[in-house]
Amino acid sequence: MPEGPTIKEFREQWIEFIHELQDKICEALEKVDGKAKFMEEKWERAEGGGGKTRVIANGNVFEKGGVNTSVVFGEVTDVMRKQLKIEGDEWFACGLSLVIHPSNPFVPTVHCNYRYFELYKNKEVVDRWFGGGTDLTPYYLFEEDAIHFHQTYKDACDKFDKTFYPLFKTECDDYFVNTHRNNERRGIGGIFYDHQKPNKERDLDFWMDFSNECGYAFIDAYIPIVEKRNAASFTKENKHWQEIRRGRYVEFNLVHDRGTIFGLKTNGRTESILMSLPPTVRFEYNYQPEKGTEEDKLLQVCLEPRQWIEISDLGN
Amino acid sequence: MPEGPTIKEFREQWIEFIHELQDKICEALEKVDGKAKFMEEKWERAEGGGGKTRVIANGNVFEKGGVNTSVVFGEVTDVMRKQLKIEGDEWFACGLSLVIHPSNPFVPTVHCNYRYFELYKNKEVVDRWFGGGTDLTPYYLFEEDAIHFHQTYKDACDKFDKTFYPLFKTECDDYFVNTHRNNERRGIGGIFYDHQKPNKERDLDFWMDFSNECGYAFIDAYIPIVEKRNAASFTKENKHWQEIRRGRYVEFNLVHDRGTIFGLKTNGRTESILMSLPPTVRFEYNYQPEKGTEEDKLLQVCLEPRQWIEISDLGN
Repeated sequence: MPEGPTIKEFREQWIEFIHELQDKICEALEKVDGKAKFMEEKWERAEGGGGKTRVIANGNVFEKGGVNTSVVFGEVTDVMRKQLKIEGDEWFACGLSLVIHPSNPFVPTVHCNYRYFELYKNKEVVDRWFGGGTDLTPYYLFEEDAIHFHQTYKDACDKFDKTFYPLFKTECDDYFVNTHRNNERRGIGGIFYDHQKPNKERDLDFWMDFSNECGYAFIDAYIPIVEKRNAASFTKENKHWQEIRRGRYVEFNLVHDRGTIFGLKTNGRTESILMSLPPTVRFEYNYQPEKGTEEDKLLQVCLEPRQWIEISDLGN
Repeated sequence: MPEGPTIKEFREQWIEFIHELQDKICEALEKVDGKAKFMEEKWERAEGGGGKTRVIANGNVFEKGGVNTSVVFGEVTDVMRKQLKIEGDEWFACGLSLVIHPSNPFVPTVHCNYRYFELYKNKEVVDRWFGGGTDLTPYYLFEEDAIHFHQTYKDACDKFDKTFYPLFKTECDDYFVNTHRNNERRGIGGIFYDHQKPNKERDLDFWMDFSNECGYAFIDAYIPIVEKRNAASFTKENKHWQEIRRGRYVEFNLVHDRGTIFGLKTNGRTESILMSLPPTVRFEYNYQPEKGTEEDKLLQVCLEPRQWIEISDLGN
């Protein structure tokens, strides 16, 4: 990996951001849970680098979850060349990935991921890009929660570029899709972006600041929803529906999610990758909620994503 | 699809075999369950053909299961040309696929699949092959059950060719593997074969008879194990372990199983394909059974497949 001062400086700045974000998010989640603490496992990768996997389980609020970071690097392999369509001889990647599965079916599951990738050839940076996003997977639809979640990310995006939110909201709706389930989305979306390359107009610092803004927006976007919904009492039927929907989460992650499949097929750390899977899950043949029920309302919004926020001020 | 008399005759003979096998297997499973009945759903495929999906749920023995048949045909698409590496303009496929998930963790899960494929060009058969197999996924290891299961398939194979059992047993061990889990097998195997093309030595009738023998062997291989184990009482901990292992079943089917992934990505009938998923499943971070326990014993046999049967008489 190239050690030139400017290259190294930015990389280290990014690593520091990712680790601080991990600390702050874990702190906020532990606080709202009030009982469970994250357990940390550090791991190393034979080919270079490693990670800090932090998992939480059986809390007051959170049944299972993980907030993981990794700083990994190595030689470009044939599999990478083919699957990622990249040319180069060395690479570096660092990111944070979290999935949180609450116990109460009225509290949504949430996922977020912020990452940075560098590609080198003969010790020079030949390519680099940023990716990230956060998406919400409720089991019951509370429109005000969906609006709050999307508004938080729209506000974060708008500070940088008013075209971002509508663009990244659509990318999110288009990515988290169970194509084998009539294009059902896994939830009500959020934002998602990938392969954002710095240029003269939007340089490294721009993307650093943007990632920072979106990364920390997670706390404002998600924690108030947890606080608002966690006290709600729920029935066996609500839990049953949550477990059915968690089945869809498993299907998306194992059948469609590029990162999960790439990780599992290229000797990634399985336990860290699969921390995203829900704790208890149910698969039933041809389960369909009754029309007009709260369960059906959620299903319909997954089938037809909505615009939660007015974007009429675009371009102003 | 070509309608020439010999071609049509064999196809119809195969379809008849598959439907009779479905009836007989469902009958045997209903009898041993004593409570639940299969519910049938007929479906049609826009591009040609259809199927009979038969599912069972919440029985005395069987928590969830399906015994499905399909008779499908159509034009060779670009996806098929690429993924199946075939050349031709039309195809036909007919098979039976079953997965049975018992409630009691001492009764193993079982899968079997027998199928026949024809490829045409200008209304002539240009290729055809047979595939099939049956594999057992216990949650606790009873060596005598593993031996009985393998012996039944060895006996079936030996009637046709003494090289088959060792070959197809190894193919089975090599196919049902969670490569992302340190090459853990999903169970204790059985037999598996694919792309078996008729030739002068082993003609269409040979493979028809062999499929017949193996297809019906399911009843002798599996039902006695159910009868022997279903009365055993079990604890919450046994059920917990079963649900953890069912998680591995989900991982294999969604990440590695060629048929499942191909079906889901090419507009197959999702509910029929995913009837294979277990009813209740658990995913826990880095769950490891204690060394020396019954749970660990099962895990070890999945990591290191055994030869259950002496095959010293090979070639005699």
